[in-house]
Amino acid sequence: MQVRGAPLIGITAAFGLAHAVVQDPTDESIQRAYGTLLATRPTAVNLRWALDLVLAQITPLELDQRARGAVQKAVDLRAADIAHCESIGANGLEFLNQLYSGDTVNVMTHCNAGWLATIQWGTALAPIYKAFDQGLPVHVWVSETRPRNQGMNLTAWELQRAGIPYTLITDNSCGQLMQQGKVDCVIVGSDRTAANGDVCNKVGTYMKALAASANSIPFYVALPTSTIDWHCESGKEIPIEERESAEILKAGGMDEEGNLKELSLAPEHFVTHNPAFDVTPAELVSALITEEGVCSPDVASLLKLRDKVLKST
Amino acid sequence: MQVRGAPLIGITAAFGLAHAVVQDPTDESIQRAYGTLLATRPTAVNLRWALDLVLAQITPLELDQRARGAVQKAVDLRAADIAHCESIGANGLEFLNQLYSGDTVNVMTHCNAGWLATIQWGTALAPIYKAFDQGLPVHVWVSETRPRNQGMNLTAWELQRAGIPYTLITDNSCGQLMQQGKVDCVIVGSDRTAANGDVCNKVGTYMKALAASANSIPFYVALPTSTIDWHCESGKEIPIEERESAEILKAGGMDEEGNLKELSLAPEHFVTHNPAFDVTPAELVSALITEEGVCSPDVASLLKLRDKVLKST
Repeated sequence: MQVRGAPLIGITAAFGLAHAVVQDPTDESIQRAYGTLLATRPTAVNLRWALDLVLAQITPLELDQRARGAVQKAVDLRAADIAHCESIGANGLEFLNQLYSGDTVNVMTHCNAGWLATIQWGTALAPIYKAFDQGLPVHVWVSETRPRNQGMNLTAWELQRAGIPYTLITDNSCGQLMQQGKVDCVIVGSDRTAANGDVCNKVGTYMKALAASANSIPFYVALPTSTIDWHCESGKEIPIEERESAEILKAGGMDEEGNLKELSLAPEHFVTHNPAFDVTPAELVSALITEEGVCSPDVASLLKLRDKVLKST
Repeated sequence: MQVRGAPLIGITAAFGLAHAVVQDPTDESIQRAYGTLLATRPTAVNLRWALDLVLAQITPLELDQRARGAVQKAVDLRAADIAHCESIGANGLEFLNQLYSGDTVNVMTHCNAGWLATIQWGTALAPIYKAFDQGLPVHVWVSETRPRNQGMNLTAWELQRAGIPYTLITDNSCGQLMQQGKVDCVIVGSDRTAANGDVCNKVGTYMKALAASANSIPFYVALPTSTIDWHCESGKEIPIEERESAEILKAGGMDEEGNLKELSLAPEHFVTHNPAFDVTPAELVSALITEEGVCSPDVASLLKLRDKVLKST
């Protein structure tokens, strides 16, 4: 967990494979690096996507051409990620413009799908950055995202740094804010999207989608099409990463002297269960916002989107 | 926040008022103590209920009889709370027995509504204690309950101590567990219940109720009738306590040497919003489990319950 965020995981893996090829361009070395990198995270489908693209690029090449080919492909993927995130921002901005009626547009997000999870812009935060740049009054409800607190540590930090108004809240208060009419829309990212529109994202996303649906609030998922698993028929097939109990039982932070420390919140023998992701069924998703445009979360619309993606690559 | 849990807040307030009367039994002293105690917490309706009962007991008495009268009333309320919680346990046990079909009955709870929130038994945990005593195989999903972690610090501790199987989870993973069929019912407590059956309880309860409803899982609220606010027509009228940002931004725990310490999870200037409770609409509640029996969460059924309560007091 040195790298997180599906798009960033993909690009990092591409550079990782390129690094291995620079060291040793033989098929054996490449296969070893591919296997090692693929095993690092089970949920984000970008990992395999990026590795496969680099592999396809270099496999036909002579040994002495592979290093250059691999690095060039990783650099190209990086540039494409920036362009895709900016397009997601532009496409999502249309929804924010529609929601604007003179008052501040209140957007809720979960976890971090900002530029810290990609190269630039982010996915879920891209429309918010675009809106802010355009002068649209926007405010973001940032859920802290237990147990790793990516909302608190990353999203609130990004927004604070950019000067975008935000309020940090517990995951538990998200439902109440929607019930009270304080949320105009929810935008989250996706770690993997199934071919039927089911969305696998940071654990807690599903309950936010339920609350949005119950309160007639649009629930948008912003994602590069590289996070769509076309072979995955529904969210039920997506493996969910189970993470260590220490994420729940320990907390890291800064003491009064400014030193980073760790505390035990509860005894080590407490029994825990710590899934990192959950699946939001397609029927709770208002729209998928991708670099290729906005897509309804259903099989037919996703097939059309796939054709568009294939034509553009 | 030295005392928490609606029933315990009530009994503690009764002893607090009795203490003041022992010091000084004049009307002026009593009114001052009543006002001070009433202002300590805005949401739990037991606070006023208990204070009013002690007041009604002592107001007609001569000054030299008031101390004895006040202490006796507080002792009586304490005894009644124990009896009521045990009755709630017995009434809730019937639901757990119905859910038993040979396999472990998986109950989810939120926050702490165990004996640490009452005098004995608890409210939401009372049926679980009864089931365990009776030999019914029961397992409890304990949500950590950010930001104060009452699930982790109190409920998990209570269950661990009693030898009842439990698993501590983040609030974010509750929806997924219900979606995966790993929860047979949810039982929570209530800080205040409106006359229409709306339930005000620890923030996060509402989203758990939404997830239970979406997955056809019974959602029970266990409460002594003293937490029902008969003058409150709906949950919208219940004041929600807003608590300090430090609850979100700081974490207390134990360092490696076993000392209690506090860390900053995020900078102090981060903007936060920290409501302590939320309202679950009556339509998401399967049943109210009270000491006077099980009650449907609707105006007519609650009026009948009120008659029962008035007759039994």
